[in-house]
Amino acid sequence: MMKAYLDNGNTTPVDKRVLEVMEPYFTEEYGHPLFIYSRGRKANEAVERASESISSTLGARGNELTFTSGATESIDLALRGAAKARRENGKHIITSEIENPSVLRVCEKLDENGFEVDYLNVDKEGLIDLEQLKSLIKNETILVSIGHVNDEIGTIEPIKKIGEIILDENPDAYFHTNAAASYGRVPIDIDEANVDLVSLSAHKIHGPPGVGALVAKEGTEIDPVNYGYQSLSDLRPGTENVPGIVGFEKAAELSFQDFDSKIKEMREIRDKLIQGIENKISEVILHGPRDENRSPANVNFSFKHIEGESILMHLDLQGISVATGSACATRKLEPSHVLTAIGLDPVIAHGAIRFTLSRMNTTEEIEYTLEVLPKVVENLRKMSPMSKR
Amino acid sequence: MMKAYLDNGNTTPVDKRVLEVMEPYFTEEYGHPLFIYSRGRKANEAVERASESISSTLGARGNELTFTSGATESIDLALRGAAKARRENGKHIITSEIENPSVLRVCEKLDENGFEVDYLNVDKEGLIDLEQLKSLIKNETILVSIGHVNDEIGTIEPIKKIGEIILDENPDAYFHTNAAASYGRVPIDIDEANVDLVSLSAHKIHGPPGVGALVAKEGTEIDPVNYGYQSLSDLRPGTENVPGIVGFEKAAELSFQDFDSKIKEMREIRDKLIQGIENKISEVILHGPRDENRSPANVNFSFKHIEGESILMHLDLQGISVATGSACATRKLEPSHVLTAIGLDPVIAHGAIRFTLSRMNTTEEIEYTLEVLPKVVENLRKMSPMSKR
Repeated sequence: MMKAYLDNGNTTPVDKRVLEVMEPYFTEEYGHPLFIYSRGRKANEAVERASESISSTLGARGNELTFTSGATESIDLALRGAAKARRENGKHIITSEIENPSVLRVCEKLDENGFEVDYLNVDKEGLIDLEQLKSLIKNETILVSIGHVNDEIGTIEPIKKIGEIILDENPDAYFHTNAAASYGRVPIDIDEANVDLVSLSAHKIHGPPGVGALVAKEGTEIDPVNYGYQSLSDLRPGTENVPGIVGFEKAAELSFQDFDSKIKEMREIRDKLIQGIENKISEVILHGPRDENRSPANVNFSFKHIEGESILMHLDLQGISVATGSACATRKLEPSHVLTAIGLDPVIAHGAIRFTLSRMNTTEEIEYTLEVLPKVVENLRKMSPMSKR
Repeated sequence: MMKAYLDNGNTTPVDKRVLEVMEPYFTEEYGHPLFIYSRGRKANEAVERASESISSTLGARGNELTFTSGATESIDLALRGAAKARRENGKHIITSEIENPSVLRVCEKLDENGFEVDYLNVDKEGLIDLEQLKSLIKNETILVSIGHVNDEIGTIEPIKKIGEIILDENPDAYFHTNAAASYGRVPIDIDEANVDLVSLSAHKIHGPPGVGALVAKEGTEIDPVNYGYQSLSDLRPGTENVPGIVGFEKAAELSFQDFDSKIKEMREIRDKLIQGIENKISEVILHGPRDENRSPANVNFSFKHIEGESILMHLDLQGISVATGSACATRKLEPSHVLTAIGLDPVIAHGAIRFTLSRMNTTEEIEYTLEVLPKVVENLRKMSPMSKR
């Protein structure tokens, strides 16, 4: 059976070249990086090289990067760490209503603990309201957290403009961006964008799960949020996951190889899928922007009169992996907070399917999906009590 | 050159059979375990199977286990999580002065945040003072954290007796044990020992780095200490590291295969090393207990008149990896807090070398070490200004 893996926004297969560089660090080069004998020094050098290499893809330096167990931990460290370090300067935090739960749940926690959190509105394409941002920033604002790319509907937020506004309104406020859904797909330069804190994930770019990073521009004050045995980092305790870190480095390197041509290809595949769905299936609604404002990796559609979950299961039976609209609440059956924030009726939101691409996807996979999906939708609509036909 | 890896207490090579079971989860079975399509369900089943399997080695159940990024995180979650959940019941915590920094630094943090922490004394072999424990437990005691095996000097603490004392004096107080240095080497049964919380690490038993677990007996109240995107666990946010978890499961399985005979072998190798050092080298001091009270995996000696660090570097040149006395402060050059707690002079503590074994070590490695080490010590003593010869 032909297969198509179109759920790369959730997790990606590890690239075989990534696994290859990791393997010796599991079985041969297994030193503890804190230790001064030769095995330890080699492990330490591997971690430093990876820090340099990953940082450089954002225009940052190696000493600005801290490895974590994933983007979730990086975001928690960035937000609560900055809030703790800067609580004397103010208690006001700004984020948006369409952030990933990794941001929103930390913000709720900060709100419980005496911080004041404002949630920016977004327009129907998921772009945050820049005027509202401008008006909300005050002297007490210590942190603004806006995701670079929305992981559900693919909106690319204008981070350069956001960075400028923050710099204009309150240069002391930190700008954090969750780049898990953009890293390796939409470029980011922390100096150009005036970003202070960036959270990254390896397993979204064909790197291993269990590894992420927080890049914090030199001078950014953050307190640790976890405690214990300190190895190389004063900010994040625990023995470094050296094979994971080396795998992350390789995955980042591969993501930036032939970047422009690969992204162009990804965009073509994305648009082929969008156009194919719009041409072949009636009563569909594309969520999020088109063209340049949309991540090259994201397609999100509602198929009226049927449930996203039913589509997902039927596609799965034919080897096609996708996510439902609310990618982060799949077992919870809540309608997506992102789709409701852009103004969708909950019924339409329930019918949403997210397709997320990576540089490994092929035109053939898209053609196969465009062959299977219209039949799946047609059959489900025939059976659907919601259908008017 | 012959090699001997005798630093398994720091980190172990990943067993090839462990890597083998991990590999498909990197490249083929890469579903996100929260997701309801077939790939996700398979990943979910793998996580549940691993939870069951690892828990069963402690007499616990799968739903009592939470995967983390390592023992450091597990300990932080156990201690701060229990302290937060139970702060209404009291603010008194008991630990010992020889705990790993992963415990001590969290206790310092709790102390800063209004908890009262008592540190038990130990005797010259590192055994905690049970009478002192008994006298310190009060109504306000919410938590006692004592490591099962001391990772520097190999003392096996009498956790069954500790558990009984806690149960007698205040059955509401939780008993946490850091089992990173004992798991797979010294058996533990959470019911027999009245333990509520156990922290585990995979990379100390030939499993992958970046994975650990917290086992919390059903009914134990713990609050999360990190926030964000929740996948399978309500206690610990973040996408599960499925290949790491599957690797941990396999490493645990292998650690309990032929357990009795393997541990007997390890103990023989340990005693061969101890006796060899005592017979071949003068002016040496064994730290920690002998025989049954000592971990089968640990040997720790001071070599008078010379620095542990010099011995380590010279052994390294001959392919032998060991740790200095203060395994956790290697770049920091502090004398080991464990060796000072058992009453050693700082000069003697600086001359300590820790050898840590695993089931992969062979008699040949020990023989090689016993051939090289006496010459290294002799040469260093000749050059040493501290030597009286």
